[in-house]
Amino acid sequence: MTSPGGADGADSTETLTRLRDALGDRVDTSPDALSAARADKSGHAAPGTPLAVVHAASIADVQAVLRIATATGAPVVPRGAGTGLAGGANTGTGEIALSLRGMNSILEVRPDDLLAVVEPGILNADLNDALHPYGVWWAPDPASRAISTVGGNIATGAGGLLCAKYGVVRDAVLALDVVLADGRLIHTGHRSVKGVTGLDLTSLFIGSEGVLGVVVGATLKLRRLVPGQVRTLAAVFPDVRAAAAASAAVTAAGLQPSVMELMDATCLAAAHRLLQLDPPAGGAQLTVQTDGATSADEATAIAQVLCDAGGTVEMSRDEAEGERLLQIRRSMHPAMETLGTTLIEDVSVPRSRLAEMFDEIARVEREHGVAIPTVAHAGDGNLHPNFIFDGPEVPQRIWAAADDLFRAALRLGGTLTGEHGIGVLKSRWLAAELGDDQWELQRRIKDVFDPQGILNPGKVFAP
Amino acid sequence: MTSPGGADGADSTETLTRLRDALGDRVDTSPDALSAARADKSGHAAPGTPLAVVHAASIADVQAVLRIATATGAPVVPRGAGTGLAGGANTGTGEIALSLRGMNSILEVRPDDLLAVVEPGILNADLNDALHPYGVWWAPDPASRAISTVGGNIATGAGGLLCAKYGVVRDAVLALDVVLADGRLIHTGHRSVKGVTGLDLTSLFIGSEGVLGVVVGATLKLRRLVPGQVRTLAAVFPDVRAAAAASAAVTAAGLQPSVMELMDATCLAAAHRLLQLDPPAGGAQLTVQTDGATSADEATAIAQVLCDAGGTVEMSRDEAEGERLLQIRRSMHPAMETLGTTLIEDVSVPRSRLAEMFDEIARVEREHGVAIPTVAHAGDGNLHPNFIFDGPEVPQRIWAAADDLFRAALRLGGTLTGEHGIGVLKSRWLAAELGDDQWELQRRIKDVFDPQGILNPGKVFAP
Repeated sequence: MTSPGGADGADSTETLTRLRDALGDRVDTSPDALSAARADKSGHAAPGTPLAVVHAASIADVQAVLRIATATGAPVVPRGAGTGLAGGANTGTGEIALSLRGMNSILEVRPDDLLAVVEPGILNADLNDALHPYGVWWAPDPASRAISTVGGNIATGAGGLLCAKYGVVRDAVLALDVVLADGRLIHTGHRSVKGVTGLDLTSLFIGSEGVLGVVVGATLKLRRLVPGQVRTLAAVFPDVRAAAAASAAVTAAGLQPSVMELMDATCLAAAHRLLQLDPPAGGAQLTVQTDGATSADEATAIAQVLCDAGGTVEMSRDEAEGERLLQIRRSMHPAMETLGTTLIEDVSVPRSRLAEMFDEIARVEREHGVAIPTVAHAGDGNLHPNFIFDGPEVPQRIWAAADDLFRAALRLGGTLTGEHGIGVLKSRWLAAELGDDQWELQRRIKDVFDPQGILNPGKVFAP
Repeated sequence: MTSPGGADGADSTETLTRLRDALGDRVDTSPDALSAARADKSGHAAPGTPLAVVHAASIADVQAVLRIATATGAPVVPRGAGTGLAGGANTGTGEIALSLRGMNSILEVRPDDLLAVVEPGILNADLNDALHPYGVWWAPDPASRAISTVGGNIATGAGGLLCAKYGVVRDAVLALDVVLADGRLIHTGHRSVKGVTGLDLTSLFIGSEGVLGVVVGATLKLRRLVPGQVRTLAAVFPDVRAAAAASAAVTAAGLQPSVMELMDATCLAAAHRLLQLDPPAGGAQLTVQTDGATSADEATAIAQVLCDAGGTVEMSRDEAEGERLLQIRRSMHPAMETLGTTLIEDVSVPRSRLAEMFDEIARVEREHGVAIPTVAHAGDGNLHPNFIFDGPEVPQRIWAAADDLFRAALRLGGTLTGEHGIGVLKSRWLAAELGDDQWELQRRIKDVFDPQGILNPGKVFAP
């Protein structure tokens, strides 16, 4: 794919000269940096060679890059830690990778107002380590939280394991500082709990994957640390459908675990092999955590629901044993990599439809002759089917199977992507979910913010 | 004010003929209906006479009205129950009031997925009455909930008393059905807990006050009914500043009441007179509720913080007595009406700045020579200063005092409007909060949705 707005040779030279004049050694054209900017953790890499990586150190740096890009027409790809799973930050021929990773300060922590003001490049886990002494935390907990930035979490509208109980990124941001395509800085939102002045541009930027502007600061909504002991239980089921139905029964019974993760037989076996544990007892497992003042009672009630649904339940005796149980779920990505190259998908359905979605996955496996080991954030209905294949490129037959699976999720009232975003990998299905009228409206909103089309071209709204 | 896009006489006749051909007796031009459509609960009324009130009974009706309006250029003002406090639904000369009040069905309740699908005209309280047997509720609880519609709550991004603990409207909507200015129907959002496909237009419509499209259906995010007994306590303080500081101390101590309402001396005295109670003991009162499994312990801890902050605390013995305590707060609007005509304002500040905001209100009272009795949702920092005056129109000196107060809220990191919206009454201050660049961006987003400017013209983005 070539960048629609990509600068040609002569323009590239001028752009690079201007960048160096303005930003000096923060402009990086080393082969390693250019190569790294082409890819994220999806396995996909943009073709060709980026023009430069700019390591922004300040809002003024970001403004300088965008003013130059506006003047020369060079495309700009905002980038955090590069841990995305949809190719949204992959930077190709002639494009400037604008790295926010170095802007990683915490500017303010206000436990009394339950807010923090941060730069976008701070890692999610580093932020939460720093917040802990104040007795507060930022709830979004993508599985990547040790390696992904808060800015990247905001750009993708990230989720995680705790979302059914504690919300996603869009529930946890009060205000944003954003540099527009032409270099102007705006401030959206408010520091107060409530605020309805004008249109909610803060929410519009959350999950906009770098196509509307560059987030250079965020006022985050915090929560108090949850008191009490975390309880963990694991329940083994004969097959994945039974486990999915059991997880839906927990929600339907009015119980609210903090974590409820589902692994199918292939995932479970691969994780046990990787961790050198004895082979698992059943065909699927739910790992459930409860927290807060009534965590013990809730765990007991959930155990009863899972038993009634045909599960064999093991309750952890202490938090260390609970952590060991959850470790099996946490080792899923390396475990999948032992099976081949993986395309990690991200559909989400209403919780009551989870068992039906697993039926659809089994059908797609059968009809397309592909293996799709699947884990799910069962508490919120978000599934990560892993398409396994050989070689570095996603083969056409895998995309055909994924297409079938996406359309099944939409039929069940679900969505293409629960938490990873559209990026380049799913842009061709965007109109199937939005409808042509809404796709066109969204594209025209993008044009309001970026009339020249220099911000992350080719992402989300592919031509 | 005349409507910028208002149809002239000849066009008006054509528009009315077309409306009657398409919608028959759902087109209402009775003097009472036209007169009622001019005003909301703010006390402000649009000048002149609306063209017609259309009582929409279906999505097709709404589409028909908007297709006719697009063809003739007639302005359309979407309207729920007319309980707004910023003039956002007031309909003036030549404008069509498009009433959604008759579209009040509940289409689906799914307690297992914690969602309900509703038409926009259902009253908030009626919805919650219908949800109760399912063991679920929709959390937004504006003080108007007995008389305001869910669609109106969505259009204003309404808040209420429970917001610090249970969120506002933007936290409680999953998906929307929206008729665009040209009559096309789009569906935004998703039924799943998570979903990040494309730009978040659901959030963009929430709080957009009818300037982007007409909400004709909503998929609402529900909560389980909260178990346990609600505890209520009232604390009297020597003055309002002490009460405000005490409420901030509660949040800073890590405690989370479900309700924390503050009344100043004038409000308290007026409410006691109205309810024929003995005069109040102190100069300001906090009324606090806790709920959930640990409500008794939390009430005890909050009582201690309030005592330490100089309050005299009375704990209710049972829920009936608690309800009587809260009744004083609930009678505030009629109590204010006994003092004169009121302009109810709606600024919101970070909770730690609440005491300073009360200092600013005292200063504005002093410097402008006006009385501003104030109640506050102290749990979330949202204040309702009531400007009291004689006669039906807001005098210039009151607007001057309000201007001073708005700018003070902005200086404290607050916002013009926490939950009532901009409407017509606050549009002249919108750019002061957003900045000119963001104001212009928002105006251009409006143009994407409504290129002819027929949707609620003159509201929010006044020329």
